[in-house]
Amino acid sequence: MKINGTPFRTIWPTADNTAVEIIDQTKLPHVFDTLRLESMRDTERAIRDMQVRGAPLIGVTAAYGVALSMRHHASDAALKATCDKLLLARPTAVNLRWAVEKMRALLAPLPESERAAAAWQEAARIADQDVAICSSLGEHGSGLIRAMHEKKKDTVNILTHCNAGWLATVDWGTALAPVYKAFDAGLPVHIWVDETRPRNQGASLTAWELGRHGVPHTVIADNTGGHLMQHGRVDMVIVGTDRVTARGDVCNKIGTYLKALAAHDNGVPFYVALPTPTIDWTLQDGVREIPIEQRAEEEVTHISGLCDDGQVRTVQLTPNNSRAANYAFDVTPARLVTALITEKGVVRADAGAMKVLW
Amino acid sequence: MKINGTPFRTIWPTADNTAVEIIDQTKLPHVFDTLRLESMRDTERAIRDMQVRGAPLIGVTAAYGVALSMRHHASDAALKATCDKLLLARPTAVNLRWAVEKMRALLAPLPESERAAAAWQEAARIADQDVAICSSLGEHGSGLIRAMHEKKKDTVNILTHCNAGWLATVDWGTALAPVYKAFDAGLPVHIWVDETRPRNQGASLTAWELGRHGVPHTVIADNTGGHLMQHGRVDMVIVGTDRVTARGDVCNKIGTYLKALAAHDNGVPFYVALPTPTIDWTLQDGVREIPIEQRAEEEVTHISGLCDDGQVRTVQLTPNNSRAANYAFDVTPARLVTALITEKGVVRADAGAMKVLW
Repeated sequence: MKINGTPFRTIWPTADNTAVEIIDQTKLPHVFDTLRLESMRDTERAIRDMQVRGAPLIGVTAAYGVALSMRHHASDAALKATCDKLLLARPTAVNLRWAVEKMRALLAPLPESERAAAAWQEAARIADQDVAICSSLGEHGSGLIRAMHEKKKDTVNILTHCNAGWLATVDWGTALAPVYKAFDAGLPVHIWVDETRPRNQGASLTAWELGRHGVPHTVIADNTGGHLMQHGRVDMVIVGTDRVTARGDVCNKIGTYLKALAAHDNGVPFYVALPTPTIDWTLQDGVREIPIEQRAEEEVTHISGLCDDGQVRTVQLTPNNSRAANYAFDVTPARLVTALITEKGVVRADAGAMKVLW
Repeated sequence: MKINGTPFRTIWPTADNTAVEIIDQTKLPHVFDTLRLESMRDTERAIRDMQVRGAPLIGVTAAYGVALSMRHHASDAALKATCDKLLLARPTAVNLRWAVEKMRALLAPLPESERAAAAWQEAARIADQDVAICSSLGEHGSGLIRAMHEKKKDTVNILTHCNAGWLATVDWGTALAPVYKAFDAGLPVHIWVDETRPRNQGASLTAWELGRHGVPHTVIADNTGGHLMQHGRVDMVIVGTDRVTARGDVCNKIGTYLKALAAHDNGVPFYVALPTPTIDWTLQDGVREIPIEQRAEEEVTHISGLCDDGQVRTVQLTPNNSRAANYAFDVTPARLVTALITEKGVVRADAGAMKVLW
């Protein structure tokens, strides 16, 4: 999508094809900075430290990580070590595993001398495929926005949680792909952006990317969505997801479940946008089966932002000696999900309907 | 309640009865500081700048404001000017109006020479009455905690939202009064403290007062409660309220509704603790009838905390040019409320059952 008029992806090969560049997402929204990743170790660090984040982008970054590694050591042992190392960078990320295993399966049968070139090509292909998938699900999702606009004949208000925008993918995004498609097609949209504590990906990333592309939006505290829905101020919710079970339970950023409950209570459609590889066909009951990552309590007790001296500073919010808990995701049961927006079409969140996505 | 072993109220007369002292709540949780209020102007400023907050405490502070004013000028004109000025300090605060009008009604018929003494006595009486009400509702509420403990035979996990602790009243609190009563009686309790964006009263005030009294607690992002309830980690929710309608709809800090939905979805009891004067018998449908205060968007876009240089600093969270909306309260429909905990007992949240509270 565009940053102040200039088209960007979140990851791209350098002109000489010796490295990849990324947008350092930990510095947004206050500083726009790109980073050059020259080695597997660079990519692994970028994933672990969340300079890249979002399931699809993590997958593509890991694929490039394998490719960069193969340039130095292309032995079976090196391939195994690389893949194993990258898989540990973010334990919950299903796309990370998918991309790494795809690279491993492609490269393992090849002679060592061909691995580097094949890996580079494959990483680029995975990136392009992600763009195509997001673009396609964006088209399907924008149909829902268009239909809402035709019914309402006024600006369509869409609430989103966390960042499932183009910054979380290579381009277009998942939850925001329908928004960008609708906006670019001239439909009037306005986005309620949940700030998404504790890491504030909404306030820092979603608000930033919507603003840079020119999409009207308003940042709200995560507590606010229910009130807005009670008063008819939300026409639909669209969120992304890290993992969907075979019966349609949705694992996404902590707090998604609360918004789904409010949407259900107020008759507001609740959509989940995802590339079909996000579906984990081995799981059924998401609440019981999906382990939820716990992250550092400092993400709750402290927060960073731009100080009036122009520096990004971290401040402590809680009293000394108060502990905090930091669960990163929750699971929204399928019964609260109106439909899944995928690159293959819009599908009900139940095992029967989802079979077409196999 | 206690601050590191020493009993405190949130407002108390000085030993020589020439002024009142308060805890400066704007400095919590990073600095504990008391302030001496010597004049009506001091009390009015303390209310306006939220050095005192919480409906009951605002009322008591205003009552002392009238009393301090009467010492200097006890004429009818002075009484009117004082009351009018105090009423403007926080326009939406129901208890402020209640306390000021109570003082005015008591003092107006008295000779000027008796007003100062009578006012001082009445302010102290209002304070004591608030303590008695909170203590009584605390006793009733602690019965619910005791019953849960007898059933569970393990630590009772209670989730609370915002600050309805002793800092919001003169002592004991509303939502936290049952917790303090249970804790002081030796029952094992643990409190999940919603940080309560955007003003973070949970992370800054509730965590502070629980910690100082020694009550085990854990601060969580507001997004977290639903996940915890899905996994049986919350035994009950207790919140305070700013206004309850005659049929039991509950207006409280924004985000309360989302927690009530999650409690309902998971069979977790959801209690609202309140002194009965908080009931507005003129209202029925809270969602439709209660106007919701919108506050400055800077409370969403900026946040303050303790920097590592020891200074409390404000940082900007959102990108430049992103707007924010800041709705301060929401309404939880009575159907999601298990019961109201009042000084007169525990009562179902419906018009019929609530008649005993008249």
